[in-house]
Order: sequence, then structure tokens, then C-alpha cells
Amino acid sequence: MPVSSERLRVAVLGATGYAGVELLRLLARHPAVELAFLSSEQYRSRSASEVYPFLSGIVDLSLSAPEAWRESPAEVVFTALPHGTAAPFVRDVLADGRRVLDISADFRLRDAAVYARWYGAHAAPELLPQAVYGLPELYREALRTTRLVAVPGCYPTGALLGLVPLARAGLIREPVIIDAKSGTTGAGRSLKVDQLFAEVNENCRPYAVAGHRHRPEIDQELARAGAGAPCVFVPHLLPVTRGIISTMYVPLDGRPERLTELFEAAYAAEPFIVLRGGEVPELREVRGTNRCAIGWHWDEGTGRAIVMTAIDNLGKGAAGQAVQCLNVMLGLPETIGLEAPALVP
Amino acid sequence: MPVSSERLRVAVLGATGYAGVELLRLLARHPAVELAFLSSEQYRSRSASEVYPFLSGIVDLSLSAPEAWRESPAEVVFTALPHGTAAPFVRDVLADGRRVLDISADFRLRDAAVYARWYGAHAAPELLPQAVYGLPELYREALRTTRLVAVPGCYPTGALLGLVPLARAGLIREPVIIDAKSGTTGAGRSLKVDQLFAEVNENCRPYAVAGHRHRPEIDQELARAGAGAPCVFVPHLLPVTRGIISTMYVPLDGRPERLTELFEAAYAAEPFIVLRGGEVPELREVRGTNRCAIGWHWDEGTGRAIVMTAIDNLGKGAAGQAVQCLNVMLGLPETIGLEAPALVP
Amino acid sequence: MPVSSERLRVAVLGATGYAGVELLRLLARHPAVELAFLSSEQYRSRSASEVYPFLSGIVDLSLSAPEAWRESPAEVVFTALPHGTAAPFVRDVLADGRRVLDISADFRLRDAAVYARWYGAHAAPELLPQAVYGLPELYREALRTTRLVAVPGCYPTGALLGLVPLARAGLIREPVIIDAKSGTTGAGRSLKVDQLFAEVNENCRPYAVAGHRHRPEIDQELARAGAGAPCVFVPHLLPVTRGIISTMYVPLDGRPERLTELFEAAYAAEPFIVLRGGEVPELREVRGTNRCAIGWHWDEGTGRAIVMTAIDNLGKGAAGQAVQCLNVMLGLPETIGLEAPALVP
Amino acid sequence: MPVSSERLRVAVLGATGYAGVELLRLLARHPAVELAFLSSEQYRSRSASEVYPFLSGIVDLSLSAPEAWRESPAEVVFTALPHGTAAPFVRDVLADGRRVLDISADFRLRDAAVYARWYGAHAAPELLPQAVYGLPELYREALRTTRLVAVPGCYPTGALLGLVPLARAGLIREPVIIDAKSGTTGAGRSLKVDQLFAEVNENCRPYAVAGHRHRPEIDQELARAGAGAPCVFVPHLLPVTRGIISTMYVPLDGRPERLTELFEAAYAAEPFIVLRGGEVPELREVRGTNRCAIGWHWDEGTGRAIVMTAIDNLGKGAAGQAVQCLNVMLGLPETIGLEAPALVP
Repeated sequence: MPVSSERLRVAVLGATGYAGVELLRLLARHPAVELAFLSSEQYRSRSASEVYPFLSGIVDLSLSAPEAWRESPAEVVFTALPHGTAAPFVRDVLADGRRVLDISADFRLRDAAVYARWYGAHAAPELLPQAVYGLPELYREALRTTRLVAVPGCYPTGALLGLVPLARAGLIREPVIIDAKSGTTGAGRSLKVDQLFAEVNENCRPYAVAGHRHRPEIDQELARAGAGAPCVFVPHLLPVTRGIISTMYVPLDGRPERLTELFEAAYAAEPFIVLRGGEVPELREVRGTNRCAIGWHWDEGTGRAIVMTAIDNLGKGAAGQAVQCLNVMLGLPETIGLEAPALVP
Repeated sequence: MPVSSERLRVAVLGATGYAGVELLRLLARHPAVELAFLSSEQYRSRSASEVYPFLSGIVDLSLSAPEAWRESPAEVVFTALPHGTAAPFVRDVLADGRRVLDISADFRLRDAAVYARWYGAHAAPELLPQAVYGLPELYREALRTTRLVAVPGCYPTGALLGLVPLARAGLIREPVIIDAKSGTTGAGRSLKVDQLFAEVNENCRPYAVAGHRHRPEIDQELARAGAGAPCVFVPHLLPVTRGIISTMYVPLDGRPERLTELFEAAYAAEPFIVLRGGEVPELREVRGTNRCAIGWHWDEGTGRAIVMTAIDNLGKGAAGQAVQCLNVMLGLPETIGLEAPALVP
Repeated sequence: MPVSSERLRVAVLGATGYAGVELLRLLARHPAVELAFLSSEQYRSRSASEVYPFLSGIVDLSLSAPEAWRESPAEVVFTALPHGTAAPFVRDVLADGRRVLDISADFRLRDAAVYARWYGAHAAPELLPQAVYGLPELYREALRTTRLVAVPGCYPTGALLGLVPLARAGLIREPVIIDAKSGTTGAGRSLKVDQLFAEVNENCRPYAVAGHRHRPEIDQELARAGAGAPCVFVPHLLPVTRGIISTMYVPLDGRPERLTELFEAAYAAEPFIVLRGGEVPELREVRGTNRCAIGWHWDEGTGRAIVMTAIDNLGKGAAGQAVQCLNVMLGLPETIGLEAPALVP
Repeated sequence: MPVSSERLRVAVLGATGYAGVELLRLLARHPAVELAFLSSEQYRSRSASEVYPFLSGIVDLSLSAPEAWRESPAEVVFTALPHGTAAPFVRDVLADGRRVLDISADFRLRDAAVYARWYGAHAAPELLPQAVYGLPELYREALRTTRLVAVPGCYPTGALLGLVPLARAGLIREPVIIDAKSGTTGAGRSLKVDQLFAEVNENCRPYAVAGHRHRPEIDQELARAGAGAPCVFVPHLLPVTRGIISTMYVPLDGRPERLTELFEAAYAAEPFIVLRGGEVPELREVRGTNRCAIGWHWDEGTGRAIVMTAIDNLGKGAAGQAVQCLNVMLGLPETIGLEAPALVP
């Protein structure tokens, strides 16, 4: 392990949103990293541990204006800013010769026109070709050398890890159904009535049925993996803080044992994929971790494969995955800083 | 409204399970009914309000052994007993000339062989032909005259109310995907580790993926309504006490406005169906009620209809529906005793 | 029961906050009342059931600007507006010859100077002498004839119903400890970070330890009942939607059976007080109701009486109590419109 | 850090209860420890990760019968067995020359007669004099050399860390009020109706008001610290999985700044105590950790000190504290294996 003086200095822009604070939680204990700069528009000039008391003695750094990244010695910048806000920062950081892991949606979609349809005009479309989609299980090699990582969305991560092995095997020829259930932190820490405790608690509902902006991201990556049809994607809001269960339905002819073969071949060497076979995954087994648990079943009567994944939307669905990408970039073992077991019970 | 002396006397066998106590909650305020007899194996000779303090001053009746129904003056008996236990009681009550609304699964499946596969040998298969499936929206006429109502399961109620209009229109020709999410009271009040608070809270998981016993019930009724294929059914456990969201996916060609026409035609006169059109239903809008909220959307890119329903599994999914059936049987307005608005927030 | 044409017409100002919507839930089913006017600043000109789908078919009235009350035929006005906002409306409604039940804090404190310390300058101090504190168990007679009811705060209701019998008996001579635990709807439906689901869920904390504005209200009423000392009041936020548990500690010499005598004497005839004696009250037994459950225990080793109360903060702690006060004002049986059992489970 | 071959081998008896599995979660990542033996009556011969999938790849050891500890090479044994069951194992392990950290209540009370009143006859009273009460903040020196640690109860830990500084300063002369609120894992993983999700969710209630068995433990330690009176202790059940908030009320004359002085003097060097001063502690800031957050306020009007503590009942209240004690016993830095930040959000 490098001693402190050799640690990589990193900055986190947007450090007090839910993805941002999860980055702090992980990076503060990462043995190869030193937190060198944090920003927060809302809590500027307070310390991170004032805003989040659990960070007391762990991250007591002050929160600066995001623009001040330039004066910091950070060699790598994590941007956990709102969509649209991130792109200009990403452009400037890259121009300054530093590397970026962007947790916003700004560099996930390869087509600026598709981006514009869901998020508005793109501020730095010229950078899209150099962004690598930060799912190490799919793009590990490209991640080793890129200077710009587009950390995937939480829903796409949960869906793609379950579906890509099938798509690559040419088994997705009709629309796949993706029925996803997410905890509330997926929506960030923004003030909306429908995120109040009394609105979410003892409730559950589908939302964005007519179109969620993670859908084009899923379709893009399914297509790159060889899928022959777009997906049907319906997200639901769960009364839990963290986690996404994605239940996916794929028409699949005969040979059900093929599912097991595919998943084992795809993920045998992956440190964060837990294959549960015929068992079902559950939210809590991945809570607080960078893991993705995958279960599957072939329904004989209807010829449908049912693939189920569980991730922590802030972990493998955001900050954990960003740290995994950083480890890949740095040539470190991928699990460094990400070994803590789930919080169960 | 009839005065007390004219009220119908009813018995509830299994009054302290979750469906049983919901019956007490509803029947205690039903203006045409008088609770005359309650049973509970577990809490025998205690009063209902000792076991459930919220019933204090509302239902203070004593809990008897179930066999003692015979001595009671009850003209109608609700059986909220475990599957398998109910059938012999149902047989005896019918033989005694009284009427039964059975909340167990014992009389829902019309084929004793199918029943046996999921629940064990049937104790009174000779009665199956006379049982009416207690979904008033489908079988109102038959309910008016039957002496044996098989109150549907909670998952089947949520699924069928969303799918039957499509099945009747001949639109279900391929397997329908039913992705259902239920609160924990669907599993009753039985002592299982996986029902402990610390196991359910902050968790969510699919279960019974390889086969849930509500599936043959759904398939039976879909087939009766004209569906040409069995369903894929995956239930999930939610960290909420009450409610089921069913999200259903049906391949559907062209003419999406047909969905609206179908639902409006099917349910225009139904007092407990709330058509939400393009809006999504949510659990809490039906909590504590006998309502079923239905929303739908046609996904143009994939040619899939998405139909979503919300019910309270103890309301429209069990006790509320049983009371609605009773109202039908008695020729009363169907909403009597079931008018209380949902508990929101 | 009066027929529809004879129903009392009522207005609800602030109908979409949590106390407001609870009023709608209750008043919509109140047999002697007709909802004639609703206001909402935020949702103006939408219908109540658009904002709260559970009201569909129950309250479909349109939401007006609050000022428009004047054009409505309402004979009684409920004001569920923010503190400070209510007072001018109350003044105008009274001046117009109508009656008011105010759920805000504006008329609860009898001393305008005390009010000013906690809420800012009072807009209509001249009305304070005519306001009756709307706790029917304490001030039933005065409520029969007043035109202005100050509906008590939620914490004061839970505390006072447990303590006033002791205060009246001269048993409160030292500071009483009131440790209260409340669901989140007590804070209303306002957009605050600390009311987001992910901040409240799996959390619990004391707050306002240095001074909560319900404390002077409790002290005022304890003093009126004869208490000889102010209270210590520490509220806590619970991860539940509704309900307050107040656990109170009173030094009490000898004769512990006196507690039972006092509570039985005070509340024998009260329809909404449930005496639980040595049993403990719990939140859920009162959820959705106007009840207050009271338990007590005398701790011999320390000479402390422990008095515990449970209420629903939106029920007996706000809207339910307001309806009870209305019933008193109208000379109706107090339980009309308030008979629904708690939602359990 | 020692290499693997030099790690201390430890056993966990009762590894699948909630305290047991928390020990696994912590010990699996403890750099100086190797899990060498696990027992579970209920899940015998299955692996730990079969019972708890989150342990997959982390603790895959098999679960043995508890008696088999003798054949294991473990030098230190953690007993997370039920009260009463632990004592005979503790006796045998000590007789075999190994060391024990007992998480049950069996060695916490120094007086076998007091133990008998709350738990039944003691199986090994002769060992009581050698047990050290495992609160390092109070008994660090004795812990360094003992072979038997009685890990404190969860409620006593939360209460004592807040009260002992006052007791030692001679400020506790009258009964202290301890109003404690706990998550459900404090009751273990046992099958009781009142631990079912649908009973705990959306609920809160006091319990054991007439006497909880943690009270004599609190009184014992308060008396050892110099308190002049027993406590009043009322626990409450919260709808959360982990954590205890203890709110304590102490009559205290004049000089309120003394509180700050006392806490700072007592805990300045303690790695797991977080002094929050006038701020309130909250459950989530300690979730999953071995921390205790302490806040305080002096109420001028009544002369009462309010002291509030937050701990994780499975962390500082059980397994975390046991690991801290182990670190003390081994002469290791106390924070080893306990550095992970809380899981927030």
C-alpha cells in the first residue's frame, strides 16, 4: 500500500449530494487516495462533517465553491454534479490535463442528439467520443487508458449486468421487459414533495412510464452488445433508502441451462458480481457495497427467462462503481477501498 | 338502514389473522351486519380487543374455538382460516344451511387436481362446482344467488382486474408478464424468520420465482376470460404493511386508444374501480379501502401495453372484497360498509 | 341524521397540507356536514382529487384562492394555514359573522407576548380573549358557545391528556419530564431537507431541545390546571408518518393506586379516551382515529409515576380534534364522523 | 499488520443471531484476526454465506454444533448465545485455558442473586468475580489482563456513556430518567409475533415499563460510578433495524457549563466517543459503527440536564464493543477493524 505522501489526490465536486457523500464515505478509507478538495454550492465554507456528522473525524475538509478546483492539487476529479452542470467542469478539468470520473449523465450517451432529447443541449459534445462508459465488466480495457469516465446510471447498471451476457449471445431479439424498483436516493437529495418521508413511506408506485431518461442509455448499451430490439423500462419507487431490484423478462427458446453457462462464462472472474443461480437476489445483501447479485430462472411453461439483479444505487450504481473505475485507471486491484461487507441486518 | 334487531348475524372464523382482523374492522361498522361469533385457535377465550387494542369499544366479543360456530346464531360465516383448514368447516356450515364466504384458497381453483398440486389433497372437492369466484366485477350475477363464495387471492385480484378486459377482447394471445409487489401482510401473521421486521425493512426481493400458488388461479381466470396463453408471474416482497402494485406487460398491436376504450367500457359503472388513465396508481391511494386503481400506457417503440393496478391486499385483496361479495349476496348497495377513504398520508 | 339540504356548509382553508387533507378525509364522510369551499395557494384551481388521488369520487371540489372564502356559503371555516397566516383570515371570518376552528397556533397562547416570542407579532391579539382552547375533555362547556376555537397543538394534546388529571389533583409540584416521539407529518408538508425520506428513514433524533414552541402551550395549560412547575419537553422525530407517543415522568409519593382513580374519574365518560391501565399504549392503535390511549405505571423504587399517551398527530392532534370541537359546537353527538376504527395492521 | 499465519484465531458461538452475524461482519475484515470456528444450532452444517448471502466470498465457513469449539484451534471465543446458555460454555472455555468475550448477559451482573431475579439461576456464579465489564471507556485497564469479558448490554452502554461522567462527579443524587428508544435487532432474531414487520412498522410503543432486565445492570454501574439513586428506565421499540437513542434527564443545579467540562474531560482521548455539544445526536450517524455520539443541554427554567446518546445496538451496543475489548486485550490500537464510517444515507 502506498504511504500517505504517495497517495493520489482527488477532488469531489458536488460532495454533499447523496452520490457525493457516498464518494466521501468510500474515498476517505481508500488506502491509495487522499481527499484533497471538496465542493458544495449549498453548504459552501462549512465542513463536510458539519453537514454530515457521521463524517466527524473522517472527512473534516471544508466545502469550497466548485470553481476552486483549479487551485487544488487534485490529479483526478470526481464530478457528482447535476446533469448539465457537470459538462463544462469536465471540459475545463480535461483541458487542464487532469482526469475526470463523471457521475452525472453528461457523457453516458454517445449521441448528442439523443442526449438533447432527454437532458437539453449538450455543453461539450466534442468530448463524447473520448468518454468511456464506466462499467468495468464491459469496458475494462478502455478504462485503463481513458482520461474521461462516464459513470453509468444506476438503473442501466442493474439492467445491463443482467442482460448483456444474453445480448452478446444473440439471445435478445425481441423487446426485453425491465421492471425496476429503486430506493429514493436514486433521485438525489433534491427538495421535491414526492420525496418527503410521508409521501414515500408505506407507498410504492411506478413512475416515468411514458419514458425515463435511463432508457436510451440502456438501449444504447444493449445495442452495442448485440441486442436486436429496444427495451420496455418501468421504474418503481420503493420506500427504502438504497438499492435497486431489476426483474427482467426475456423470451428464450429451449436449453434453459444455457443461462447458467452464460452467466458463469461472463462473470467467473469478476470480483463484484455474485452469481446466485436459482436463488433470488435481495436488496440488503448489496447495501453499502459495490456488488451486483444476479439470479435467474427459466420459466418452462412460457419460454421466458427471468433475470434478477440487485445493486446499491449509490454503490455499484454510482460512487462504488466510480471508485472501481478509478482503481482500473490506476492499475490497482479493483477491490481496493471497496471490500466492506454489506450492512446486514 | 336496518335497525339492530334486523341486522344479519355473521361469524368470523380465524378472526385474529390479518385478513380476519380486517374483517372485524370492516364488519364492526357495517350498518346491516352484526358480529355474532368470532373464533381464534391461538387466542381462545380472550376478547378480540385484548388481542388487538384498537378494537377496544368496537369489537369486544370473546374469541371461541372455531368448532363452536354451530352454537352461534350466525346466518353467514366468513372463514379466514389457513388453506386446507377451511374446507371442512365450509362443508359443515353449508350442510347446516348457512352461507359461507371463504377467504382461504380452498374453493378458488375449479379443478381439484390443480388444487392438490399446490395445496395438498382437497377435503371437499364435491363442493367446488357450486363455489362462485368472488370477484364481483366478473361474476356479479352468480354471486347474487350462491351459498359459497370463494374470495379470490390478493395477487389474482390485482392482476385480473387489469387483464380481464384485454383477455375478453381477445388481446391476450401470448404470455403476459405480471410483475407484482406486495406488502408483508399478504403472508399472514405467521411466525417466519423472513417476516421479522429486521429482515423485511430496507429490503426488497422477488420470491417464489419458480412457481407461486396464485399463478394457477390467475391462469384459470385469464383462460375463462379468453386469454390464449398462461402468464409469467413474479411476486416481490415490499417493506410496507399493506398493498400490491401489479405491473403487467402485454404485447399489443396498433390502436393504443383501444386500451382506454376497453377499461372505460368494462368499469364505467363499477364503484370500486378508479380509472387513472395515463396516470400511475400508487399503493397509498387504496390503503385501507376496497378500491382498485388502474393506470395504463401503450409503449409505441415496442408495441407493449403496460397496465398497472394498485389494491390493498387486505381490502380488495381479501376482507374488503369479501364484504363487497356479502353486499351483493344480500342485495344491498355494494358500497355499504366500504365507504371509508384511504388513510393518506 | 340531517338530509343533505340541511347539512352545515363548511370551508377548509389550507386544504392540501397534511392537517387540511385529514380534514377533508373526515369531513367528506361526516353526515352533518357538507364541504362547500376549499382553498390551496399551491394547487389553486386544480381539484382536491387531482392533488390527492385517494379523494377521487370523495372530494372532487376545486381548490380556490383562500380569499375567496367570502363568496362561499360556508357557515363554519376551518383554517389549516401556516402560523401567522391564519390570524387575519380568522379575524375577517369572525367579523363576517361566521364561526372558525383554527388549526394553526395563532389563538392557542392566551398571552400575545408569549406568542410573539415564538411565532412573531400577533396580527389579531384583540381576539385572544374569546378563543377557546379546543380540548373538549378540558373545555367542553366553553366550546359549546364560542365562535372561535383554537385547536391545540399535537404535542400539547398528547401531553395534557396524560398530565392534567394529575395537575388538577395538585400532584404536579416539580418539573414534569415529557419525552415525546412524533411521526413526520407533525412538521407539515413543507419542503425541508430533513423531511426527505432518506433523512428520516432508519433514523431517530431529538430536536428543538433548547426550546420547542409547543412548550409554552403545554406550560400554559398545565398551569391553568394547577401545576406548580414548568415542564421539560424534548420532542423526537420518528420514522413513521403519523402518531405521537408521549412518555411522561412525574415525582409522586405513595399511594400508586391513586393514578388509576384519577384517570378513571377524569375520563370515565369520555368517548375518545381509552384507558389502558398497566398496559402500554402504542401508536398504531390510534392511527387514523381521534382516540387518545393512556397507560400508567408507578415505579416504586424511585417514586415516579410514568404516564404514557398515544395519539394520531393528525387525528386527535389536529383534524380529528377539530371535528370533535365542531360536533360540540353544533350540539351533535361528539363521535359523529369520527367512528372509523384505527388502521391495523 | 500481522501476516495471515500470525493472526489470532477466534471462534464465534451463536454466529447467526444478529449480534453473531455482526461479529462476522466485523471480524472478517479485522486484520489481526482469523475466523476459525463458527457455531449455529439452527443452521448447523450449512455455511455462513448460505444463511446470510451478503457474506458470500467473505465468510464461507461452515456452521458447527457449539460443542465442537473444543476441536477448533481458536484461542479466543466470542459467545453470542442466549442468556443462560452462554455460562456453561464460558466456564468450559476458560477451563480449557482460552479467553472469552461473552455477549450474553451472563456475566454482567456482579451479584448472582440479582442475576437470578431477572434471568434465572446462574450456572457458573464462581466466575463472576473474574469477569470484567467490557466498557473500555470505564474499565480499560482491567480489560487488558482479564480472560473473561462481559460485554455490556445495549441499553446500558447507551445510558452509561452519557451518565457516568455525571455520576463520577457526584452529580447524580436523585433518580435519573432514562427514556430509551431502540431498533428491533435489540431483541435478537427470535420468532415473536411482536417482532413481525407488520407489527413494528408504523408503530412505536414503550415496553417493559414495570421492569426491564437491563435496569439492574445500569443501576449496578451507576452505583459503582458514585450515583446516589437508582434510575427510572423506560425502553421503547422503534421501527428501525439498528440503533438506540437514550434521552436522559438529570436534576442539576447551576453552572451549566460544567456539563461540557465533564464530557470533555471524560472523553477527550476516546476514539469512539463523538461529542456533539449542543447539537443532538442521531441514530444514523452511528449506524454500522462502534461510535457513541453524545449531546447535552441544560434547561435553565427547570434546572434539568438533558443528556442524549446515540449508539448502534449491534455495534457499540454488542459486537463492535466486543471487538474493541478484544483489541484492548491484545494490546492493539483500539480502532483496528472498527474504522468503517457509518452507512449514511
